[in-house]
Amino acid sequence: MKYNAEVKISLKKGMLNPEASTIQRALALLGYEVKGTDTIQTIKFTIDEEDEKVAREEVDDMCQRLLCNPVIHDYEIKITPDNS
Amino acid sequence: MKYNAEVKISLKKGMLNPEASTIQRALALLGYEVKGTDTIQTIKFTIDEEDEKVAREEVDDMCQRLLCNPVIHDYEIKITPDNS
Repeated sequence: MKYNAEVKISLKKGMLNPEASTIQRALALLGYEVKGTDTIQTIKFTIDEEDEKVAREEVDDMCQRLLCNPVIHDYEIKITPDNS
Repeated sequence: MKYNAEVKISLKKGMLNPEASTIQRALALLGYEVKGTDTIQTIKFTIDEEDEKVAREEVDDMCQRLLCNPVIHDYEIKITPDNS
C-alpha cells in the first residue's frame, strides 16, 4: 500500500539558527518587527510498504541515516495513506 | 495582541527542485525507494498586531517583499493567536 510520508526537521532547542536570525534581521531592516523566528524543513514523499507501522520504521531509518543529523536535529514523522 | 505566524513556502508546480531530486537519489543509493519527493520551507515567528486580519496582511507583505519569490514560489500563511 502507498503512504504519504512527511518529515519535519527542526534544529534542537538551544542550537543557533543563523538562517532564522538573518531573516529576522532582514525583516527588521524593512521595518517589520517580529520575534522568535524559527525555520523548519519539511521533506515529503510517497513510499510503498505493507502497513503504516513498517512505513514509519522505514522513514525513521531514513531520518537516522540520511535526512537528519540526530546530534543537532529534532524530527517528526507523519504517515498518511495515499488515497490518490 | 500577539500572533504566531507560519509561512509555508514551496516551489510552484512544474519548477525543478534539485534539492528534492538529490534527496530522492541519495535515498535510492541507500536502498530506499521513494517517489514524488518534495521539499517545503517553513518560517515561523510571532508578530504583535491589533487583529488577525492586519497580522495576515502584514505577513503577506513580508512574503511579497522578502520571504518568497512570487515568480517561483507558492506560499501559505497561517496566523494563530499566541496564548503563551
